[in-house]
Amino acid sequence: MRALVLDREVTFRSDFPAPTRVPGESIVDVVRAGICATDLELARGYMNYRGIPGHEFVGRVRASDQGSMIGRRVVGEINAGCGRCESCRAGLGRHCANRTVLGILGRNGAWAEQLALPDANLRLVPDNVPDELAVFVEPLAAAFEILEQVQIPRNAGLLVLGDGRLGALVALALQSEGYLPLVAGRHREKLARLQRLGLETITEGTLDHQFDLVVDCTGRNAGFERAVSLVRPRGTLVLKSTTAASAAINLAPLVVNEISVVGSRCGRFEPALDALAAGRIDPRPLIDATFALEDGAAAVRAAANPENFKVLLSVS
Amino acid sequence: MRALVLDREVTFRSDFPAPTRVPGESIVDVVRAGICATDLELARGYMNYRGIPGHEFVGRVRASDQGSMIGRRVVGEINAGCGRCESCRAGLGRHCANRTVLGILGRNGAWAEQLALPDANLRLVPDNVPDELAVFVEPLAAAFEILEQVQIPRNAGLLVLGDGRLGALVALALQSEGYLPLVAGRHREKLARLQRLGLETITEGTLDHQFDLVVDCTGRNAGFERAVSLVRPRGTLVLKSTTAASAAINLAPLVVNEISVVGSRCGRFEPALDALAAGRIDPRPLIDATFALEDGAAAVRAAANPENFKVLLSVS
Repeated sequence: MRALVLDREVTFRSDFPAPTRVPGESIVDVVRAGICATDLELARGYMNYRGIPGHEFVGRVRASDQGSMIGRRVVGEINAGCGRCESCRAGLGRHCANRTVLGILGRNGAWAEQLALPDANLRLVPDNVPDELAVFVEPLAAAFEILEQVQIPRNAGLLVLGDGRLGALVALALQSEGYLPLVAGRHREKLARLQRLGLETITEGTLDHQFDLVVDCTGRNAGFERAVSLVRPRGTLVLKSTTAASAAINLAPLVVNEISVVGSRCGRFEPALDALAAGRIDPRPLIDATFALEDGAAAVRAAANPENFKVLLSVS
Repeated sequence: MRALVLDREVTFRSDFPAPTRVPGESIVDVVRAGICATDLELARGYMNYRGIPGHEFVGRVRASDQGSMIGRRVVGEINAGCGRCESCRAGLGRHCANRTVLGILGRNGAWAEQLALPDANLRLVPDNVPDELAVFVEPLAAAFEILEQVQIPRNAGLLVLGDGRLGALVALALQSEGYLPLVAGRHREKLARLQRLGLETITEGTLDHQFDLVVDCTGRNAGFERAVSLVRPRGTLVLKSTTAASAAINLAPLVVNEISVVGSRCGRFEPALDALAAGRIDPRPLIDATFALEDGAAAVRAAANPENFKVLLSVS
């Protein structure tokens, strides 16, 4: 099958072996796939991943034990747990120590004609959610995860630090739940686009007060101390980025100001699917370009351009 | 007056000016003072502090607007807020942006014959709490602070990482509230002493599973990644140490495992005073030595010896 493969760099292959189906798993024909910061970090060495990247997708079920699923349009939770351990039994397969993760850990991903996932990971996409919206379910679920982890008072001062694709989706998720987040970034054109989505924005360098809750979507460990400085004493900092590089950090301000830092990764798909189906979020204005799978290398370069929000791959 | 003064190093002075009392503040004759890790970090450059260190003390009120306080035995909360800002009005003067902190920030400390603190910071010491116990109120209050910040389930797996003075007090505070913390450290003799206090201990290098809650009392930023690795997914890491040095840290494991990190500093004195007065905690076996103020330099060296738990100064 056609696929993009990461091995030092991302290259297109027309002859990659299609996944073989095992009982309990389905094969999905990928229709659209997204490129996110984690994919770019994988290419920089994060997780030492080798294989097909890609974990944001919408597709149609090609083969499955469950005949009724064949041909249905689906998205898929990316963590495949063992199903037997304590985490899995507690409904937290996302934290199973023996999990594979689509396009990230031990399981080929979505930048290909076909992928395999456990049946239990698949979620039907409502008919009124087009492919260009459905491909946002996974990153949007990660944004909604914040609201499952942190109780945010209605009148809290909220800052989203970073005007990239993740910052944009986090801000839209908070906005859809009735909050009024401020988005801080360094790219004037992107901030202007976020304003057109109804978001309040500010140039990061001009921030001069502290917030009850800051969501760090900068994608840089090096920005951690700056992020901490923007949280009020006893406030909360949510970390959303995973990066390959370490940074020199002094943790003393966390202690002195008794700040809580909440690591936040993937989320349940349901809140994101609901918000998209109900029209409470429409992130399509964030799409800068859609590339054919064959042009994957160019697509990755475009996704790495800090002027762009979201780059998609059109697979079939 | 006699005092120990930090200026590059800690030296004894017999001619240091006594504090002048201002309205709303009291002058306290120091009886006993403690040496803690923060003091050692100050000597290494933390906070760029110059002046009299020391923030753990018990003493007697020498002068005060409140005549009934004169001669009474007191301990004192170390943060002196402005009393007018939002933090102060919310009862969180410990986080007042304009605060002074006894022996740490803009206010001379307790390694001296006399100190000055706002009247509101002083707490009477019950008669049945001797000086050698009362001098532990401040660090013990910092230990109890954890229980005010984090809801800990009764059957939670608790690890105290670090067998120093702070780790010991944190473990004793948790023990006094009915929890069964495990203390991990590297010093066989200190672990044996903690066992004699009824605590369960383990050699740090042999730890091979994860905990619901880890309290990092190692005093080293460099141990952060190790501490994170000992927290189960979705678990909590409490940070208690403030150090002058930064360390290279990769925050990705926080995000991947959705760990919460809670910075924790000073606490209210009441829970600590109650526990000492009721005999629920007796940390006196932790005292290694008591030095005269004149021998302060030797006392600081003894406190820095990793084989020792607690070193006190006898002032009057």
